[in-house]
Amino acid sequence: MIKDNEVIDDLMVNNLKIIQKSSGFKFGIDAVLLAYFASTSKAKKTIDLGTGTGIIPILLSGKYGFESVYGLEIQEEYTKMANRSLNLNDLNEKVKIFLGDIKKIDELFIKNTFNLVISNPPYKLKGSGIINDLNSKSIARHEIKCNFEDIVIAAKYLLKQNGEFIFIHRTDRLVDILYAMRKYNIEPKYIRLVYSTLKKEPKLVLIKGLNNGNRQLNFLKPLIIYEKDNSYTDEVKKIYFGQNQKIN
Amino acid sequence: MIKDNEVIDDLMVNNLKIIQKSSGFKFGIDAVLLAYFASTSKAKKTIDLGTGTGIIPILLSGKYGFESVYGLEIQEEYTKMANRSLNLNDLNEKVKIFLGDIKKIDELFIKNTFNLVISNPPYKLKGSGIINDLNSKSIARHEIKCNFEDIVIAAKYLLKQNGEFIFIHRTDRLVDILYAMRKYNIEPKYIRLVYSTLKKEPKLVLIKGLNNGNRQLNFLKPLIIYEKDNSYTDEVKKIYFGQNQKIN
Repeated sequence: MIKDNEVIDDLMVNNLKIIQKSSGFKFGIDAVLLAYFASTSKAKKTIDLGTGTGIIPILLSGKYGFESVYGLEIQEEYTKMANRSLNLNDLNEKVKIFLGDIKKIDELFIKNTFNLVISNPPYKLKGSGIINDLNSKSIARHEIKCNFEDIVIAAKYLLKQNGEFIFIHRTDRLVDILYAMRKYNIEPKYIRLVYSTLKKEPKLVLIKGLNNGNRQLNFLKPLIIYEKDNSYTDEVKKIYFGQNQKIN
Repeated sequence: MIKDNEVIDDLMVNNLKIIQKSSGFKFGIDAVLLAYFASTSKAKKTIDLGTGTGIIPILLSGKYGFESVYGLEIQEEYTKMANRSLNLNDLNEKVKIFLGDIKKIDELFIKNTFNLVISNPPYKLKGSGIINDLNSKSIARHEIKCNFEDIVIAAKYLLKQNGEFIFIHRTDRLVDILYAMRKYNIEPKYIRLVYSTLKKEPKLVLIKGLNNGNRQLNFLKPLIIYEKDNSYTDEVKKIYFGQNQKIN
């Protein structure tokens, strides 16, 4: 079931597990927050762009009860790992993983057929920071294979009228994000800032856009990770460990 | 000094006073927060677009020590009130009020001559909410005489290379704001959300843009108005009542 450089991690909810590389890119709290943020959408047909290990589809289907989730990933070894994780969780019926390039989305899927496009994209600009080589970790973190605008273009192609585009990103990219969304008429509708603590600057942002939505942005309450004593806030405890979160 | 429908309000700092209409648009906490947010810029030559009663120039010069502040206002009765407030505070040397239209900025000022453009603009879209008549209060609150893009165009005209554009606005307009700023290459650089309390959604946002700045947005710590017991936070107390805040 797993290879030498892999581990099976416990997702701590509904007996879900995930196969990850022991030294490669591992999912972080951002993936967990993103799945939670999307969980109320109850979308009939969902696709995760840049799905990696499949963490988002596994959480959406196994934790939140989504019935039809697709995952698209450009790195073949990750698609294989994701499929093995689906076997492990018996989620093969609800989740399908595809190997392919976001920039060639029109060769892979039919236009305007998804209710929800979700993504935990590479956060950093190509060329920012130090990239030693084009390894799988760099591809997950930096805009090497695609940039944010490519993802918006793919979302625009995939979404039905009034379909939702839900993602997480870094706050320092917010201008790029909102500019690209309006450019392609996926109007940003809800924004939730993620604060490590309230004494600090928010570093992450959860955003929900509506395909062809009207122009009115709604800021939500801040999502705070840590209490003053460094323990998780009640909301984050609920997100991580809450049982019976299926929407059915 | 004042007319029948006017009052003199005490700004509670450095003996500053302001003439306002007893039943018209009165400055709110947004003007106070905006002047504070701009106070560290120490700009040599500043202009306030849509200055109204002159509250921003009076705070910048009388509270924070700015030496050269211009105010532009389209409603003649407000320019007269503002000038009388300048007399009252002996700030006529440091502040000059102009009557004119932001949309005809090129007829009023020389291009690329200001270090700082500041504005507390009308927040609401033209046609949003109920507007009974085109009175002075409506003009201050709704985009009747100019919209946000007009203000960005004026700021672009006025600013020197690397000059700053600093303003406050409603969070629900953030997409319009960031889109227009990037369109005219006044890059948003700093953003500070204003929270009534941390349990609620942020309604106001302070933004600093840099003319021809590079693309990197910095979120600042939240600015919180009220403590849990409804008293002002220490930061807001300092903003309102802090003495000796001159930058000299």
